[in-house]
Amino acid sequence: MGDKTRMEKLAVDPCAFIRPSPSSGVLGGVARATRETILLCEAAGYDVVLVETVGAGQSEYVVADMVDLFLVLMLPGAGDMLQGIKKGVLELADIIAVNKADQAPDQGRRAARDYASALQIMTAADAPWKPPVLSISGLLNQGLDDLWAQMQQHHKIMIKSGLFHERRQEQTIKWMWAMVEDRLLSRFRANPEVKAALPDLMADVKDDRITATLAAEKLLAHFGMGDFI
Amino acid sequence: MGDKTRMEKLAVDPCAFIRPSPSSGVLGGVARATRETILLCEAAGYDVVLVETVGAGQSEYVVADMVDLFLVLMLPGAGDMLQGIKKGVLELADIIAVNKADQAPDQGRRAARDYASALQIMTAADAPWKPPVLSISGLLNQGLDDLWAQMQQHHKIMIKSGLFHERRQEQTIKWMWAMVEDRLLSRFRANPEVKAALPDLMADVKDDRITATLAAEKLLAHFGMGDFI
Repeated sequence: MGDKTRMEKLAVDPCAFIRPSPSSGVLGGVARATRETILLCEAAGYDVVLVETVGAGQSEYVVADMVDLFLVLMLPGAGDMLQGIKKGVLELADIIAVNKADQAPDQGRRAARDYASALQIMTAADAPWKPPVLSISGLLNQGLDDLWAQMQQHHKIMIKSGLFHERRQEQTIKWMWAMVEDRLLSRFRANPEVKAALPDLMADVKDDRITATLAAEKLLAHFGMGDFI
Repeated sequence: MGDKTRMEKLAVDPCAFIRPSPSSGVLGGVARATRETILLCEAAGYDVVLVETVGAGQSEYVVADMVDLFLVLMLPGAGDMLQGIKKGVLELADIIAVNKADQAPDQGRRAARDYASALQIMTAADAPWKPPVLSISGLLNQGLDDLWAQMQQHHKIMIKSGLFHERRQEQTIKWMWAMVEDRLLSRFRANPEVKAALPDLMADVKDDRITATLAAEKLLAHFGMGDFI
């Protein structure tokens, strides 16, 4: 699932199916469509399903809860370039690959070393999988075999440790609750009385005229749940 | 708010008030009690309110959404000791202090350096505040003046950049919605029909007999929201 125009070779491979998803709209809706497309691809017999995120907003967190392996692609870059990678993304990473290693080999090596030490701090000593950092070049087709080997190794270790099955079960239950929550909140937000009261209450809360607790109670009362604290 | 028995000097200071909170029970309940106690302390005229977390579970994330400054205390420790700090905690940190620096100065310095480089990767180059890493010794009262100076500096910069007010507003609105969500979900989970259906549905989802989507729909139907997809 991604952008066909950047995948010249893959797009013409009869064994591959590429499908762009809308990146706009309600996150919940996109998440649901993506999840169900993954399921459909699996059912259609595709044994490897790649989901590409836009790298902005909350999309990584949502996708991390759908996949077996989360690969983070980075660019080499010294000093300031390295700073400010999105909070949380390092922690989702099962593998980090620094791409375009051909263009700036020194910077690429430095970036790989920095990411490796940051990852080391964040990984438990007894974790069955320790996220590796690889240097690759998509353009020159360098390091891709090694990357694929690492991905297969991850799969093998996760299966063997039982974590593969466990992660999938957790993801599914989490997803069930996310949908329940999503629906409850949509229904709540769509309620005419709640809608009418919300702007004033938000302003009152922001300007400290009423507490968040009281505002929540008022909203719930509009929804017919005011009697239950 | 913390454990009196470990605060011999502070506990007898007439200007200080220490209150332990229950660390067990529903997280939402503890969060609410803690939030309201902070408010109460502010209203009583205490100008500095310290909230101590147990350092386990989800407590850091919850508390990070209540405070103006999040200070992470670490211990020096080489190699394996450094690994596996809780995922996400580094990203919450406004300041990191490596305590017990007197006991293992070399390890303390190494720990401080490692945290500093990890933080650097995670902080945007143009962020108004770049989290510093300090070495302190609570026992020998070393570095505490510097720590307090950094905390005041953080406060000053946050006020000046407008982020202080912005963060508080965001926290309050987030808290209002968290309470609404919490109440909706409690009501949902307490519904007798939902309760009765849940165990079988969870088992079916875990064993792949039905999809998460279908399970969510069935639960919502039990709650009287089945007509609305």
